[in-house]
Amino acid sequence: MNRFAPERLHEFCRRVFESFGISRTDADQAANILIVADLRGIDTHGVARMKSYVDLIESGRVNPRPNIRIVRETPAAATVDGDAGLGMTVSMRANELAMEKAEKVGAGWVSVCNTNHFGIAGYYPLEALKRDLIGFAMTNTTSIVAPLWGAERRLGTNPIAVAFPALEEPPIVIDMATTSAAFGKVENAIRRGESIPSGWAVDVAGAPTTNPQDVYAGGALLPMGSDKDRGGHKGYCLSAMVDLLCGPLSGANWGPFTPPFIMLKVVQERVVGKGIGHFFGALQVGAFIDPTEFKRQVDDWIRTFRATKPAPGTDGPLIPGDPERYAEAINRVEGIPLLGPVVEDLREVSKRTGVRFE
Amino acid sequence: MNRFAPERLHEFCRRVFESFGISRTDADQAANILIVADLRGIDTHGVARMKSYVDLIESGRVNPRPNIRIVRETPAAATVDGDAGLGMTVSMRANELAMEKAEKVGAGWVSVCNTNHFGIAGYYPLEALKRDLIGFAMTNTTSIVAPLWGAERRLGTNPIAVAFPALEEPPIVIDMATTSAAFGKVENAIRRGESIPSGWAVDVAGAPTTNPQDVYAGGALLPMGSDKDRGGHKGYCLSAMVDLLCGPLSGANWGPFTPPFIMLKVVQERVVGKGIGHFFGALQVGAFIDPTEFKRQVDDWIRTFRATKPAPGTDGPLIPGDPERYAEAINRVEGIPLLGPVVEDLREVSKRTGVRFE
Repeated sequence: MNRFAPERLHEFCRRVFESFGISRTDADQAANILIVADLRGIDTHGVARMKSYVDLIESGRVNPRPNIRIVRETPAAATVDGDAGLGMTVSMRANELAMEKAEKVGAGWVSVCNTNHFGIAGYYPLEALKRDLIGFAMTNTTSIVAPLWGAERRLGTNPIAVAFPALEEPPIVIDMATTSAAFGKVENAIRRGESIPSGWAVDVAGAPTTNPQDVYAGGALLPMGSDKDRGGHKGYCLSAMVDLLCGPLSGANWGPFTPPFIMLKVVQERVVGKGIGHFFGALQVGAFIDPTEFKRQVDDWIRTFRATKPAPGTDGPLIPGDPERYAEAINRVEGIPLLGPVVEDLREVSKRTGVRFE
Repeated sequence: MNRFAPERLHEFCRRVFESFGISRTDADQAANILIVADLRGIDTHGVARMKSYVDLIESGRVNPRPNIRIVRETPAAATVDGDAGLGMTVSMRANELAMEKAEKVGAGWVSVCNTNHFGIAGYYPLEALKRDLIGFAMTNTTSIVAPLWGAERRLGTNPIAVAFPALEEPPIVIDMATTSAAFGKVENAIRRGESIPSGWAVDVAGAPTTNPQDVYAGGALLPMGSDKDRGGHKGYCLSAMVDLLCGPLSGANWGPFTPPFIMLKVVQERVVGKGIGHFFGALQVGAFIDPTEFKRQVDDWIRTFRATKPAPGTDGPLIPGDPERYAEAINRVEGIPLLGPVVEDLREVSKRTGVRFE
């Protein structure tokens, strides 16, 4: 595993995007979202996906010069049609719109259709933090999750991200898939020849499995909670909520009909909308309470939870966002670590686009 | 277990509330929220809690004639101070405000401080459905949950409820605590002398336990996901999100400092705000998409998920809200089933208040 300077990776990604006619600003933003994922240690969503984005653009599924339009709008809500633009580009505009609305009327919620994979969900609430807003982001994704008691893939990993500003402490940043485990962890188990914990997946017949190969062979991931005893119905509910806000509310595809991104090529059974969907939200803290008082309380909250007595064999609870912040502190200094196959992919992208890599 | 006519229980509860000087309208609404809980099969949150509400009112912690005030307001957001009113009374006003805002500007979000237990979270989104809105409700509650890797109670069961209107199908209604199991299930295990599944709780030292008595003896429930492998950090994140939106954002108490409701009397370590907190939201469907088109898609979503191939030994996935709807269909006809001890409690309430029961 070699480490690469973030600036260098950023420039490479930006130039690759630009090589397809994506504007300098849009290419710069999209590259930034990938690099922030890598810096924060979410390496499944960083430059490791560059090749897939290039595939999408080359296949014509991503429009490099989208005409992103607001199709409905009220002071606190809107729907944006992304015109099949790069998910990151569409999302920056839609999130900006949600934040502007929050600054004007206290809350802003924007649903998005006709869009693609938007990178890490957590990036958009980080933008909200810069403006002292509480930020929310969700997206539906390719179907890989079985609802509780189902034997078929019907939902995506459908992440939810939320961030809260603090005063002296670092902000609270939540960014989580609504599955019990990330798909990347199943991939890792396969690479290492290990089994997976019970509660992560079912096989093609819908029976619980600890064999990661079963997921590839037509099985599915399980929602948070895993089974009925431990609240698997609740994880299914959360995933459904994300899907309904991103899909039917925006006019995008939903559930089993979301078009595939990359990893798992499945045939789209039916087209029920346009592209995949996102849902962005922002709340103006000052619309509810004095912002300094709020942030002081969040500081207090953080310190209270850090002071919690640790469970045996642990260092005690973390604060949401801690692991990503710790990773970023290291990666900013030492560079972004990339696995061999990821570097190979970037070299291939370099060949296909003529953009020099290193 | 005997069954009681809902109308009769409703009248009893209303009269009990009125006997403390609560207005006819407020008493009627509060009684209705309890009865709807029982009808929907959520019997832990129905008339079984009447005695606790009476305790709260008699102890002076609930103000029967609250001056419920909007303390901050913008077109899409507000904070309400409940003046220590009955949680149901305060919540009806706050939820109404969120819905009015959604009807005017597309979205409405209202945080609430200085309030008490509000009954089932799912009641308020049901109100939103009557107006064709998407409704949200959350509340923080008495601390009984350990954050992942913590050995102390720091969070409540912090439920999230969301409802989506459909066209021909019944609506989708999500109402879930952010724990892996409800506290009521631990109580049931104790009554039956049974152990509890792994993943529900930790003992006073923070170690995993299957002995329900350990929860009473200073232990704690676990957030959804239970442990790190199965996403316990995500359940903790969700619970934290609810706590931050209900507590610091409204000026209510949060985390370990929420005042106790009933079941578990603990000393409030510190006062960091007023009462407990709620958070209500409403979205106007028409601000995003044609409402009929949305509801048609929700119908399609419901039918698609009902048609999912069932996992072995199951009848296939349910739609969120199904179990409650099935319970209501029975209980409306056959009456609300009450356990002996609950009936005893109601008789005691009758004695204390002079309101006749049966």
